[in-house]
Amino acid sequence: MTEHVLTQDQQKQLAAQTAVQYIQDGDVVGLGTGSTAAHFVRALSDRVQAEGLHLTCTTTSNRTTALAQSLGLPVYPLEQVATIDVTVDGADQVDPALNGIKGGGAALLHEKVVAHNSKRNIWITDESKYQPKLNGYSLPVEVIQFGSEHLCKELAAEGLAPHFRLTENETKLVTDSGNYIIDIKIPAEASLTELAAALEMKVGVVEQGLFLNICDQVIIGHADGTVKTLTR
Amino acid sequence: MTEHVLTQDQQKQLAAQTAVQYIQDGDVVGLGTGSTAAHFVRALSDRVQAEGLHLTCTTTSNRTTALAQSLGLPVYPLEQVATIDVTVDGADQVDPALNGIKGGGAALLHEKVVAHNSKRNIWITDESKYQPKLNGYSLPVEVIQFGSEHLCKELAAEGLAPHFRLTENETKLVTDSGNYIIDIKIPAEASLTELAAALEMKVGVVEQGLFLNICDQVIIGHADGTVKTLTR
Repeated sequence: MTEHVLTQDQQKQLAAQTAVQYIQDGDVVGLGTGSTAAHFVRALSDRVQAEGLHLTCTTTSNRTTALAQSLGLPVYPLEQVATIDVTVDGADQVDPALNGIKGGGAALLHEKVVAHNSKRNIWITDESKYQPKLNGYSLPVEVIQFGSEHLCKELAAEGLAPHFRLTENETKLVTDSGNYIIDIKIPAEASLTELAAALEMKVGVVEQGLFLNICDQVIIGHADGTVKTLTR
Repeated sequence: MTEHVLTQDQQKQLAAQTAVQYIQDGDVVGLGTGSTAAHFVRALSDRVQAEGLHLTCTTTSNRTTALAQSLGLPVYPLEQVATIDVTVDGADQVDPALNGIKGGGAALLHEKVVAHNSKRNIWITDESKYQPKLNGYSLPVEVIQFGSEHLCKELAAEGLAPHFRLTENETKLVTDSGNYIIDIKIPAEASLTELAAALEMKVGVVEQGLFLNICDQVIIGHADGTVKTLTR
């Protein structure tokens, strides 16, 4: 009997290599942000070079644009792309209903805009990201800088345990859109739909990291070398 | 019989001079943005100099900060102010329920943050701003730059007649928070509450200019030289 234990990074790579098979010649492809999405960008570049596919790519962050361009993928600004055929991105957590949390890489706002403009959204993850419930997990909230200290106190008063996302230098992280990230904790009994709406209605909140009814397919790489695909 | 016909600007000035009487020594005062709010800033400076009031001011825009400082008013960043006692601001339109539209001066986001952190909100206007209904009027929506062309098409498809706010140079206006403004038209039959929620839930929308249940008092200067005050 052969033991076949993949590391977390190998699981991500496996999911990425599976997802890249879904891309078709001529597709407009949205590229996500983060370590798993980076595996997909590399796998996509390999396939383009091997098979000479003609693709149009658009990205969810300056980081991903830099990576994709360094690998020779043609990247266009979202404004120049009419509709995205398929976006492949990672997720911090995903539940059996294919709802998820994104924003660990601080790119949730641009990720959500790209996802919203995509006909089909595929998420790729390692097995640790698949969870029965999203409650209890950390949720990134993107907020405008102006008045954000007051907003953080307001979130604290509601028992949401907020804290500003910091950089390695202990300064507040600034997103690609010039905003801050406040990470909160999803309460154990919260309705995800209600929490998402309540956060988005708050003055100063630009977006929040719950991606509800957005993902069409999740591809999960497992430690035993298998891949599970869940479809909405 | 004496005819007494004030211009629109004189009506604004009259409202501002009335509002300034509500300020008390020691108050933390929020200063709005726009031509009417500027009248208030000048009237406040006059009163501070005449009576030696000790105030703490915070503002809703870089423009207002510049004006207030040039007149010797002590301005502090919102972060350094715990609670605002009273904010005095203009409004583009206000209805009999004291709901209003703001954002003609492109400062709606910071204005809403300051209003949200104020114990009391007073609006000052000329008589042309008081309208039986807000439906049919132009409504500013502040949106992130990323993906905004797609968002504008989405708003157009919903019949909201969107167009980007431009500067004098015909470039897209950029707000103090680095966003764009898309002006839409409030449909004749729309529920204001539902429209506000629908807009705020949209991916890419940061804030919208409907200020519902925020204003406590409206002071309206009239052409005949009278002042009407409406209180919630």
